[in-house]
Amino acid sequence: MTPTFPGMPRATTTAPKPRISKKEFEARLSPIRQELVQLQVALKNAPFKVLLITAGVSGAGRGETINTLMGWLDPRGVETFAFREPSDEERERPLMWRYWRSLPPRGRLGIYASSWYTETLREEAGGRKALAQLDHELRRIRHFEKLLSDNDTLVIKVWFHLTKSEQRARFRALLADPDTAWRVSEQQRHAHRIYDRLARTAEYIIGETDRPGARWHRIDAADNRSRHLALADTLIRAFRTHVAHLSRTSARANTTQAKALVPLRPAGRKRLLALPLDQEMSEEQYEKKREKWLGRLNRAVRRAAEARRSIVFAFEGSDAAGKGGAIRRLTSAIDARDYRVYPVGKPTDEEQAHHYLWRFWRHIPRDGLVAIFDRSWYGRVLVERVEGFCRPDEWRRAYSELNEFEEQLVDHGTIVVKFWLQISKDEQLRRFRARELTPYKRHKINNEDWRNRRKWDAYEVAVGDMLALTDTPHAPWHLIPANNKRYARLDIIRHACRHISAALEKK
Amino acid sequence: MTPTFPGMPRATTTAPKPRISKKEFEARLSPIRQELVQLQVALKNAPFKVLLITAGVSGAGRGETINTLMGWLDPRGVETFAFREPSDEERERPLMWRYWRSLPPRGRLGIYASSWYTETLREEAGGRKALAQLDHELRRIRHFEKLLSDNDTLVIKVWFHLTKSEQRARFRALLADPDTAWRVSEQQRHAHRIYDRLARTAEYIIGETDRPGARWHRIDAADNRSRHLALADTLIRAFRTHVAHLSRTSARANTTQAKALVPLRPAGRKRLLALPLDQEMSEEQYEKKREKWLGRLNRAVRRAAEARRSIVFAFEGSDAAGKGGAIRRLTSAIDARDYRVYPVGKPTDEEQAHHYLWRFWRHIPRDGLVAIFDRSWYGRVLVERVEGFCRPDEWRRAYSELNEFEEQLVDHGTIVVKFWLQISKDEQLRRFRARELTPYKRHKINNEDWRNRRKWDAYEVAVGDMLALTDTPHAPWHLIPANNKRYARLDIIRHACRHISAALEKK
Repeated sequence: MTPTFPGMPRATTTAPKPRISKKEFEARLSPIRQELVQLQVALKNAPFKVLLITAGVSGAGRGETINTLMGWLDPRGVETFAFREPSDEERERPLMWRYWRSLPPRGRLGIYASSWYTETLREEAGGRKALAQLDHELRRIRHFEKLLSDNDTLVIKVWFHLTKSEQRARFRALLADPDTAWRVSEQQRHAHRIYDRLARTAEYIIGETDRPGARWHRIDAADNRSRHLALADTLIRAFRTHVAHLSRTSARANTTQAKALVPLRPAGRKRLLALPLDQEMSEEQYEKKREKWLGRLNRAVRRAAEARRSIVFAFEGSDAAGKGGAIRRLTSAIDARDYRVYPVGKPTDEEQAHHYLWRFWRHIPRDGLVAIFDRSWYGRVLVERVEGFCRPDEWRRAYSELNEFEEQLVDHGTIVVKFWLQISKDEQLRRFRARELTPYKRHKINNEDWRNRRKWDAYEVAVGDMLALTDTPHAPWHLIPANNKRYARLDIIRHACRHISAALEKK
Repeated sequence: MTPTFPGMPRATTTAPKPRISKKEFEARLSPIRQELVQLQVALKNAPFKVLLITAGVSGAGRGETINTLMGWLDPRGVETFAFREPSDEERERPLMWRYWRSLPPRGRLGIYASSWYTETLREEAGGRKALAQLDHELRRIRHFEKLLSDNDTLVIKVWFHLTKSEQRARFRALLADPDTAWRVSEQQRHAHRIYDRLARTAEYIIGETDRPGARWHRIDAADNRSRHLALADTLIRAFRTHVAHLSRTSARANTTQAKALVPLRPAGRKRLLALPLDQEMSEEQYEKKREKWLGRLNRAVRRAAEARRSIVFAFEGSDAAGKGGAIRRLTSAIDARDYRVYPVGKPTDEEQAHHYLWRFWRHIPRDGLVAIFDRSWYGRVLVERVEGFCRPDEWRRAYSELNEFEEQLVDHGTIVVKFWLQISKDEQLRRFRARELTPYKRHKINNEDWRNRRKWDAYEVAVGDMLALTDTPHAPWHLIPANNKRYARLDIIRHACRHISAALEKK
């Protein structure tokens, strides 16, 4: 692929840039500071957040410029990030977890002194990575930024540029002063020696990740004052463009709501309806088999922990399909210290101020532990689709976002086990009525359950599409016939055992 | 001190306990399970959370009993905790941080397989701690549990007891079976050898931490079935007692509201009023001194980072006292990658579901980093006291809670720097009016500011009490005359410098 970054120099020398005087700087600064104040006031109540990502040539003075910009901003709405060595809590989770946990909520500005590019740039420039590995990482970065920019995030990426001779001049100036000489490290000398290779790498990475919604901007970094002004100016202009873009597009939203219930993939619904539901199983048969399979599951989970593999279970199913009961049988085989169950209901306000996947990322377990989600990230394409809680373009996009999310978990070594518990409409009615009659079960049923039931057909379409579009090799759906509770519980344990054992063989 | 734990055995042997049959077990289990369901339903909407802390003699089968209890509960409302080796993120923060971050929100049950007692018990039994150090830790534990139980937490602590001969019998039984022999570790054999010393230690620790609101309960652990039932029963009874207690006391609340504005310590208010406010400082004087002091502050903060000391700044002051501007001057001396500013406003709903200190604990920085709070934990004794957002007994208790909180930070090595910015009532009026007239400052003033202003005298009383009651040697208040903005900003930087430098000398 050819790099698309505009104006990225191919030559190593260019004409010297004009420097700006202190007087000119101050004249230009005054309106910029006013605009930054306005930006921060507007951002506070804006329906999005801003990430300002910085990267660049070694010695370009990025840290100094970020400090200067921070001095112009009200620091109360800003979070600055610098990722150093990952902590052990970070190392024991998928690569992107540390970036997900850092994301500021809507209405705030995050300034990234280092970011998901830092490691990639450094390792690649050192020639330590195969090209296939680099492309895989770039694909992940593109996906991550698209996911953010598609939702509620303005991603602004800035490359601080120096030509080779400018870099040399800068290092010389630093070395000449005993107070600053220490700042030129051996690593930076090395960066200067391999300037050309670094430039080609950066050009490639920038070209591959310059996308609508997450554009790269180049700043000529040789002159301190113009560099400071340019960063502020880039932020202001990108913000303005984004606000204008939002007001244009908001008029177009919510127009295709009506089509929500036409299946995207009829095959999925067919698979669902073809499932035989009424298996027989006596209490006696069940008890005998259950003990055997619980023992196996216990061993499988312990083997996973020994191999430092985490396990994530997702339970989905209509109301009264028996998710809660199944989870209790499952957990009876796992040491209480090793698992946690997350019931997924209405998001908290902190969760609401983030991307819809954030609330799941925050609960991704450390290596060797187990997380069980009672309802899951699939809410995006089930309840949110059916109830119109998100726009059609949002839930349509979600299928690939969900696949990618799970792929990242699996890539890290996490075992992802997803269950859909299928019951018939009649069976649901029977269970609703039984709940109403049993005093200690009455709290489990409310008006919303009856309301959801009226949308049975719509849910069937949504479930069908989900099964067809997110049944991936790395995280397949286990479809569980659940009219017979005993059978369903046993079937879930069996599937869990086999899935975990197979995953342990593979890696 | 004499241990107060009721029935803690002093002899090493007692008569064997009667075992219960499978039939009796099942007969007793059925009502218990029903009650556990009711408990979980009631807890969901209760105004408190429940922590079930377990500890006990080695080999008493605690893990097994927790698993059994978890099997009886709906795991969706429960979180289980087992603290292993602290992670590096935990090690780089005060001791209690890992426990604070673990606390479940209101309406949930946390079961602690290990807890803040685990390390204390283990190390003390190994004879590795001086008695003074143990007493210091027990004081901290007592304080932590009091703080929780005073607010919205029922703390239930269970000691699983075995006599020395029961322990021996248990280990023998495990060793006899090749499948379980591995469970008797060298550590456990050692525990058996020093049974008597361990028992004395436990007796002492239990005696010192058995307090209203955080009672210890003993379970005779020799028989599996009775042990399981006893744990469930303890939970149920403690829950019931607590609910009854709450309904009795809620009638008594909110009766002494009227007294909120009588000073507890008139000396504090006097000190505040005696402060001269109208210092002179020319622009020129200010700029000269500022550069000098900012340079010093920059060096002090870098020295703290090199010494792996974190710094926590708390800024308090009336509306328009200049907190924001002062924070910006302060941060201009710190690398943007090393600090974060936390504006403290209305708590989020996740924060509201926790103890009032939880929202501050969650932002305590790692070693070497800086957190700046724009308004702070002192809201409890300022706005919450004046506006009646908490009860008089709550804000009265808060002074010692706040002192203890800061002491824990300082004990860990954190440098705690607190500022009160004092302006006169006239100066505030002048600033309010100026804000209304300046277009880009207008967003900073609203009706609430005018409303707060009408309560000036009440705030003066609250601030006076705060200054008198929380001006501790480890975290003194820096009282800043702030009618002159330049003077105030410089004074803050000066105080910060001196405070940090002095703290670095000390440790």
